Amino acid sequence: MDAPTKEVEEFNYKIDLEGLVSLCKRRGFIFQSGEIYGGYAGFFDYGPLGVELKNNLKRCWWQRMVYGRDNVVGLDSSIITNPKVHQASGHVANFSDPMVDCTKSKQRFRADQLMWARVELEDGTLLGCVSAVEDGDTKAKLEKAAKKLMKKSGSDAALKPLEMKDMTEATEEDVPLVPSPATGEPGSLTGARAFNLMFQTQVGPYADSGSTSYLRPETAQGIFSNYKNVATVSRMKIPFGIAQIGKAFRNEITPRQFLFRSREFEQMEIEYFIDEEADFAAEQEAWLQEMWDFLKGVGLDERLMEREVHVGDKLAHYARACTDITFRYPFGSSELLGVAARGCYDLTQHANASKQKMEYQVPPPDKKRQFVPHVIEPSLGVDRLFLALLCSAYDEDEVDGEKRSLLRFAPCVAPITCAIFPLMKKPPELVQKAQELAAKLRRKGYNVVYDDAGSIGKRYRRMDEVGTPFCCTVDFDTLEDDTVTLRRRDDPLAVVRHRRDEIPGILDVECEVPMPPI
Amino acid sequence: MDAPTKEVEEFNYKIDLEGLVSLCKRRGFIFQSGEIYGGYAGFFDYGPLGVELKNNLKRCWWQRMVYGRDNVVGLDSSIITNPKVHQASGHVANFSDPMVDCTKSKQRFRADQLMWARVELEDGTLLGCVSAVEDGDTKAKLEKAAKKLMKKSGSDAALKPLEMKDMTEATEEDVPLVPSPATGEPGSLTGARAFNLMFQTQVGPYADSGSTSYLRPETAQGIFSNYKNVATVSRMKIPFGIAQIGKAFRNEITPRQFLFRSREFEQMEIEYFIDEEADFAAEQEAWLQEMWDFLKGVGLDERLMEREVHVGDKLAHYARACTDITFRYPFGSSELLGVAARGCYDLTQHANASKQKMEYQVPPPDKKRQFVPHVIEPSLGVDRLFLALLCSAYDEDEVDGEKRSLLRFAPCVAPITCAIFPLMKKPPELVQKAQELAAKLRRKGYNVVYDDAGSIGKRYRRMDEVGTPFCCTVDFDTLEDDTVTLRRRDDPLAVVRHRRDEIPGILDVECEVPMPPI
Repeated sequence: MDAPTKEVEEFNYKIDLEGLVSLCKRRGFIFQSGEIYGGYAGFFDYGPLGVELKNNLKRCWWQRMVYGRDNVVGLDSSIITNPKVHQASGHVANFSDPMVDCTKSKQRFRADQLMWARVELEDGTLLGCVSAVEDGDTKAKLEKAAKKLMKKSGSDAALKPLEMKDMTEATEEDVPLVPSPATGEPGSLTGARAFNLMFQTQVGPYADSGSTSYLRPETAQGIFSNYKNVATVSRMKIPFGIAQIGKAFRNEITPRQFLFRSREFEQMEIEYFIDEEADFAAEQEAWLQEMWDFLKGVGLDERLMEREVHVGDKLAHYARACTDITFRYPFGSSELLGVAARGCYDLTQHANASKQKMEYQVPPPDKKRQFVPHVIEPSLGVDRLFLALLCSAYDEDEVDGEKRSLLRFAPCVAPITCAIFPLMKKPPELVQKAQELAAKLRRKGYNVVYDDAGSIGKRYRRMDEVGTPFCCTVDFDTLEDDTVTLRRRDDPLAVVRHRRDEIPGILDVECEVPMPPI
Repeated sequence: MDAPTKEVEEFNYKIDLEGLVSLCKRRGFIFQSGEIYGGYAGFFDYGPLGVELKNNLKRCWWQRMVYGRDNVVGLDSSIITNPKVHQASGHVANFSDPMVDCTKSKQRFRADQLMWARVELEDGTLLGCVSAVEDGDTKAKLEKAAKKLMKKSGSDAALKPLEMKDMTEATEEDVPLVPSPATGEPGSLTGARAFNLMFQTQVGPYADSGSTSYLRPETAQGIFSNYKNVATVSRMKIPFGIAQIGKAFRNEITPRQFLFRSREFEQMEIEYFIDEEADFAAEQEAWLQEMWDFLKGVGLDERLMEREVHVGDKLAHYARACTDITFRYPFGSSELLGVAARGCYDLTQHANASKQKMEYQVPPPDKKRQFVPHVIEPSLGVDRLFLALLCSAYDEDEVDGEKRSLLRFAPCVAPITCAIFPLMKKPPELVQKAQELAAKLRRKGYNVVYDDAGSIGKRYRRMDEVGTPFCCTVDFDTLEDDTVTLRRRDDPLAVVRHRRDEIPGILDVECEVPMPPI
């Protein structure tokens, strides 16, 4: 894996988050969910191009991770699960964020995002506290508020430098002094309290505590709770993995940063079960490298990727190690993918709660021995990958003196693989040749657009805009010698003639999902 | 479309529902959700082979319906939706089943499944009522109960024939007389009341009426609420369609019949928008025919399929027409797919509720005119299709005097497309040739199993059991002339030699998704 290079520092985004959101809507990648009703915070709908891009990402991952390996099989477990699964996993008790309530405004804030500071004179006199909800300028906001307090007090002594904390760091004595961001006045905030992030629902005809269930907050527990069944029917020997792609749900208090922190999202996870005596760090490293290569293969810009090792508090209590691959989104660097060594925590929890044995028996000829498998978990958010890919693919250039934006998607993930252009709307033979080619490609499973409107140059532009890598033009020469032109988005000068019947084979090669070398 | 023939009557299932459930578990197609915790009624997990089969069905449908058409685009809307969507669609008010409570046992019954009858002597004397929850033998059960009542009364007069009704047909006077199936005694049942089938949840930090939302009970409303955005960005002219595959949820009171009536399921739906002046019956017929061909193409047994036209009460109030394609499951004939002509009901509801215009402007050169598009909705349950496919593919035969079961999946949907068998575990050149072929096929996107254990005959049996259509054996001749044998599951005598590098191309042709002819 490449270490972060100097280039990272020099990379300049050509698009900001707002521009990206607007492009996504305009070109049919992403809409707000229920937009005609004003949207719905934290929920998004994938439009015609978005659903293709997302499906392609999932297909590439599945092909590489599951088909590409003899020892990884798939699973698709239900979203609503027997609540005992999430009791055993610890999610019912512990999957929570600390929250602070404003009893006056009835608003609720994430305690770790509600920043505050004591405003004190150099001699230690306390003038009060100031607060702000975290954003880019929190410190400046607090300082402004502190100055106001100062002015109000009439004192002209010097202020101590502000020491910014969040509400999880507020003592019982501090809490009544911190002003609510809703009202600006202190006295109405509560201390930080745990708020479970799982969406609850009631299953069955009666709504009582026995009917409470949860929408899964991660796909992983569906894998752990099926470990025994899958291991048995697949006759897998350790090491082996179970892969799953599916939706997960978290009732985020402040969904934000577009697709990055939404309430409904999709995960691609593998639980890779290893020997308790195996070198887990080496296994983790191998998966990190594999995931890095996968991300690069589907088109992520390596200059924007970095590794981040979890240390100290950031490492979950059950994890032996965890390393993220972060991506530099337009709003800053943040998690895209994580590879955690979870030990045997989850299987042990389920073994205890279900009274089922989860031990793996080492088969002969090895020494007789049994253990609860340990696990390496590569976990990737589909929506975050989608976002990172858009950021990577976005480009601007000039055509005929006009600035325009385009998307440089890799052929294996592009929403439209190839556009077919009959030069004109007639004669019928020309149209037929073009339509035959389109039908042939569709039969092979390619998403193809048939476009006969406007000049060929304009049609190229339209396809560049949505990231289509190939355009084929059927013209009058086609009627003579059955050849067509193939034009490549990223090499627009190289418009090459091919026999019409060669096109499907060319696309087959160009659109191959990146896999490790044979 | 073929009319039901006499053959339908003669078709005998080789497997019953119980056998199918057990086969699904044993071979890793379907597990109960949270099985280690005793399962969870109405929820299922797809195992390693199940997820492949299901994904292939979805891929075939998408390729045929979306890629195969210039005027159908895809969508993937969120499961949790702005609640205004389901208020406007009428689901919040009306998406309910009639329920009857037993106040004594606290059990709840579907009113239309709680059957009862008055037990009267020929002279009109009422002895009481009898009841039973609907199953195959309801009538016999009621008659048995009636005889008991008769005996208890001591009368030897003749009984009037029983007139069986369900609880939605019980008057206020009847209700107190009907015994509860839970207690056997009358007096504890309530009248039928509406019970909404949508799963509710609370979105956001506060749980109050404003935060209530629903898991979508169908994917269709996600399409209607996005109609305007999609129509705009895709610049589609009517007629055009929007297709979606995704999960939907219904809190069924009595989930049953395996995958057929579960609480979490997946749908494949198209909303096909047509001119208000179009011949909707002709459009509906075209989609029915297309769907019939699709079902046949992925391997459904036509002898088990029939059309069923909705008439009278069965036709939803907003629908102008609806025809199902039913399938004869082991538990009886029931809906698999429906093609409804829904008029402009849904778009009009959303137009009114959102105050957005949904009118379509007929473009020039046609006469200027605008209308709210009408819609044809082909809707298919993925899990029901999965079930119907398993029923169609299941077969039994004899090999070497032993009865065995196998699955005859079509190549385009089989969970494993091809198995690669090195004749023996050495020499290394043999293993390498076999592994190269496996890698090449995986790179092309095929799910391949590599198996080097046991006799070739045994390996064939294992693959037949899970429905793998092709097996390739790499043997000592391969080392000489680079040929391999290709064995076809459904023609096991025709083991044919091919050049190793021809295999991928052969599979490409054999595994093509069935599409309408070019």
